[in-house]
Amino acid sequence: MSVTNHQLIAFGPLSSSSSSFFAHSNITSSRAQIVGVRVKNVGVVKCVATPPAQQTAYTSKVSRNPNMAKLEAGYLFPEIGRRRNAHMLKYPDAKVISLGIGDTTEPIPDIITSAMAKRAHDLSTLDGYSGYGAEQGEKKVRAAIASTYYGGLGIEEGDIFVSDGAKCDIARLQMLFGSDVTMAVQDPSYPAYVDSSVIMGQTGKYQKDSEKYGKIEYMRCIPENGFFPDLSTVGKTDIIFFCSPNNPTGAAATRDQLTKLVKFAKENGSIIVYDSAYAMYISDDSPRSIYEIPGAKEVAIETASFSKYAGFTGVRLGWTVVPKELLFSDGFPVAKDFNRIVCTCFNGASNISQAGVLACLSLEGLKAMKQVIGFYKENTNIIVDTFKSLGFNVYGGTNAPYVWVHFPGRSSWDVFSEILEKTHVVTTPGSGFGPGGEGFVRVSAFGHRENILEACRRFKELYK
Amino acid sequence: MSVTNHQLIAFGPLSSSSSSFFAHSNITSSRAQIVGVRVKNVGVVKCVATPPAQQTAYTSKVSRNPNMAKLEAGYLFPEIGRRRNAHMLKYPDAKVISLGIGDTTEPIPDIITSAMAKRAHDLSTLDGYSGYGAEQGEKKVRAAIASTYYGGLGIEEGDIFVSDGAKCDIARLQMLFGSDVTMAVQDPSYPAYVDSSVIMGQTGKYQKDSEKYGKIEYMRCIPENGFFPDLSTVGKTDIIFFCSPNNPTGAAATRDQLTKLVKFAKENGSIIVYDSAYAMYISDDSPRSIYEIPGAKEVAIETASFSKYAGFTGVRLGWTVVPKELLFSDGFPVAKDFNRIVCTCFNGASNISQAGVLACLSLEGLKAMKQVIGFYKENTNIIVDTFKSLGFNVYGGTNAPYVWVHFPGRSSWDVFSEILEKTHVVTTPGSGFGPGGEGFVRVSAFGHRENILEACRRFKELYK
Repeated sequence: MSVTNHQLIAFGPLSSSSSSFFAHSNITSSRAQIVGVRVKNVGVVKCVATPPAQQTAYTSKVSRNPNMAKLEAGYLFPEIGRRRNAHMLKYPDAKVISLGIGDTTEPIPDIITSAMAKRAHDLSTLDGYSGYGAEQGEKKVRAAIASTYYGGLGIEEGDIFVSDGAKCDIARLQMLFGSDVTMAVQDPSYPAYVDSSVIMGQTGKYQKDSEKYGKIEYMRCIPENGFFPDLSTVGKTDIIFFCSPNNPTGAAATRDQLTKLVKFAKENGSIIVYDSAYAMYISDDSPRSIYEIPGAKEVAIETASFSKYAGFTGVRLGWTVVPKELLFSDGFPVAKDFNRIVCTCFNGASNISQAGVLACLSLEGLKAMKQVIGFYKENTNIIVDTFKSLGFNVYGGTNAPYVWVHFPGRSSWDVFSEILEKTHVVTTPGSGFGPGGEGFVRVSAFGHRENILEACRRFKELYK
Repeated sequence: MSVTNHQLIAFGPLSSSSSSFFAHSNITSSRAQIVGVRVKNVGVVKCVATPPAQQTAYTSKVSRNPNMAKLEAGYLFPEIGRRRNAHMLKYPDAKVISLGIGDTTEPIPDIITSAMAKRAHDLSTLDGYSGYGAEQGEKKVRAAIASTYYGGLGIEEGDIFVSDGAKCDIARLQMLFGSDVTMAVQDPSYPAYVDSSVIMGQTGKYQKDSEKYGKIEYMRCIPENGFFPDLSTVGKTDIIFFCSPNNPTGAAATRDQLTKLVKFAKENGSIIVYDSAYAMYISDDSPRSIYEIPGAKEVAIETASFSKYAGFTGVRLGWTVVPKELLFSDGFPVAKDFNRIVCTCFNGASNISQAGVLACLSLEGLKAMKQVIGFYKENTNIIVDTFKSLGFNVYGGTNAPYVWVHFPGRSSWDVFSEILEKTHVVTTPGSGFGPGGEGFVRVSAFGHRENILEACRRFKELYK
């Protein structure tokens, strides 16, 4: 395959599986480049690009956004996907089991998909057709979310913004906050918080020695502090991202801990962005919503999702709560600006997905979701028991579909590779979630039961 | 209804219809505020908020994003919706016809909704279930879009990024570009380009006299220049937004004009963001895609949507093309950064919507879409003929579902109000799209045939 001029040509479509194309690299059109490019079914092909005598590739004069250049590598999960695919190419006969990316695997309960199918069919009828929905979501959906999850907590229909998912909402919240805010994040944490902060220009450069971006306050969450940060050591920031139950550690903050967090935010005048995407996985009496804590409405935004409740990872439906009581320093309601973002940068969640959510929140739907969640929780128990029986220190699992396994003194990418190479099981290396994740591996519990059991058999074999 | 402390309390849910809550206003928690708030079924209630002697509403210490404060008013279409709803409250017996917001009204063809219903049902089966899709879109969908719309133009599957709509893509493109770029926009134009630019901090303040934001290059498009800007008068900018067929003027740029535009972009090193959402409405031989112009792949991104083709305004599916040939000034491929944005700030378009698109792009689906588009085009003709017969200068219509009617010397909001008050028909005032829209009103052609005919009867009555 020839390389014309000295442009880097992507072989095959851009996708998670060919993200070697997107590995961080400096490409300038005036230098000869030796690039390793993955070619489907062939392996890695080395392409030497040399500038031909006469032609230079045209470039625009638009400067690359320096914030994009700050990003240290690709987003974590496409990288996991790339390594999984590379492994599958290398061992075409191996039965690779994916417990890496937290992707749901079980079919969506009928009651939910039937509602979506009905809505689809209705769209072909005169009476049932609907065009643009309210950007904040259909009234019924907002009302159902408010009553199901926030009944008695003083959160109302009007505080709910329905979306195509919490990850997308995080980006929109970052657009809302702008570049002049500082943020604190748990360490380790779901990578979208840090990465979107970098993209929006809130951070300094990546520091290779600490594996941290400048200007972000990393709140270390480790076994020694029960995965809740010592707030007395945390600097003041405008925004505090907090995920509970936590991805990746699985830790659910207690009522006491969240009370401390709300107090901390109030004293500092910070806004908490509380990610409650795994709330329905809670087994004990840990709070499901930040709004169970008095005073939280004045300091916290809460984001959530049906991805891990209803298998909606592909269907796409989430929501964000912005209480009317949440105000910027000049008294301007945060909800007003978020509404403006939602009206300008978004056009509503899919009406079909929303129909699905109405079914999710029916009595029967809630029961059905509880069953699916229960299934994944059983998976989680199996994984926890396996690693415990092998003598590992194991965290998470109780209140989340993630198991956080400690490999003290070892590089998490090394452990990831070892597990992948020797058991053909994909996990996620803890350091992918931040330096606080080093020495840990996240095992996700989404999978068919037989795959979970088989993976655990292989773990037992490897680490016996 | 009492106002506790001096917080502004939203009456009823936040929605497009209650956007008076979101009218631009300065709210500080330390001053008494007299606010007019719309209360459902009651009308406007004046609330005087006075600080009680002892308590002050808590505010965070987070500064409001100054870019949000720059926005002059709410997003245009919720305002149109608010006025429509206010009118309906005022005249509960009037049959209000909405030709304002360009919202599709006709049922989606069966072949498309059946595919979506099937996909929904399949999600309840072991074999048919799918979780997270590739953030760039399902392979088949990307391939179908590439071959249907870009066959022979050198745009491939890998250049296509499937999304939940062009409006959402515009915001993600703005995040990609960052705050340090300058932009040019047609005047008038679809408000999302300017508003997202303001939000991202690319602009200066709003200047009330010129009705323009600082640092934006407004390219006036008026009858005198055939709705194509005189590029010799346009300053150099990094980004050029160009929509053709145009919303709101309906003008479709010719091959010659687009060749000039590409040349202009190339000479200046600019990147064109070409909005082709109405391409399938073209009746003549105007280019459907910017990539019909030689050299465009090196200077242009193209965004598009199934909203107005398949009635997907609520279903949500669009796409953006970022050619591999498009490079930043340092040679870095724009697609690489856009892919990073898509992987970090988005989680893929709904799998059900994508199934719908596969059906849209089948032979039968293309035929079905053509029929629906043809129906709206007939509506357009009826509206064009009506205003022409009344002696108006009428533009657009031929290549787009919008009719751009000239009311020389009159304020477009006044004409909007007059038409609404006297005929109960909602239109969109041209100045809502920029100062170049003053003196025009946009009449959208989406509607049931009987409503279009009735609206036209009323126009004839009013303007005979």
